[in-house]
Amino acid sequence: MNVAAFFWVLIIPRGMKAEELHELDEHTYTKIMTLVRHLSRGLKNMTSAYKVNVATLGNQVRQLHIHIILRHEQDPAWPKPVWGHHETTLPNQDETNRRMAYVNEALASIEP
Amino acid sequence: MNVAAFFWVLIIPRGMKAEELHELDEHTYTKIMTLVRHLSRGLKNMTSAYKVNVATLGNQVRQLHIHIILRHEQDPAWPKPVWGHHETTLPNQDETNRRMAYVNEALASIEP
Repeated sequence: MNVAAFFWVLIIPRGMKAEELHELDEHTYTKIMTLVRHLSRGLKNMTSAYKVNVATLGNQVRQLHIHIILRHEQDPAWPKPVWGHHETTLPNQDETNRRMAYVNEALASIEP
Repeated sequence: MNVAAFFWVLIIPRGMKAEELHELDEHTYTKIMTLVRHLSRGLKNMTSAYKVNVATLGNQVRQLHIHIILRHEQDPAWPKPVWGHHETTLPNQDETNRRMAYVNEALASIEP
């Protein structure tokens, strides 16, 4: 999610019609949850986040997507969930680059 | 969660100090996510829910807990997330019994 206020990653499995995590076949489910686990752990460590929020809601956008949100006690929604905080300020280019580098580093820690 | 407005299940792993899903060892993580998968699928089918919300937030209560919430287009928070809706009306005994029976049935579908 391209907002300055939160480091907020969405995992969107491609080429599937699933709307619920439990609709994925066991292999795909395990693969995606492994990805979630590595990204949560890696990004939390790299950003010194206070808490990770992981969620699959999809009430409004039905296509399956998984939220991973790095939370800090200083973020504008703390300690509430981030949904409903309509932050629209974009991160600057340096911040975008930093986030992308963190995501790539976390992805690289996953064994093939 | 003992509120009439939502069929809302919390999974709380016992005897662990984990605060994040990714802190669980791989075996426990897989076991718990299998539980989440079976409960989500079973309870959604049994209650004809419109959507399942699955989340690990823990910003205020740190002990690891996983929310599974069966959502309906007629529920009082729809389509927003349920957090922040401070519903306190308890379900009646029949409703509590019905929910417990559904949970037990969903648990029974998990292979040992």
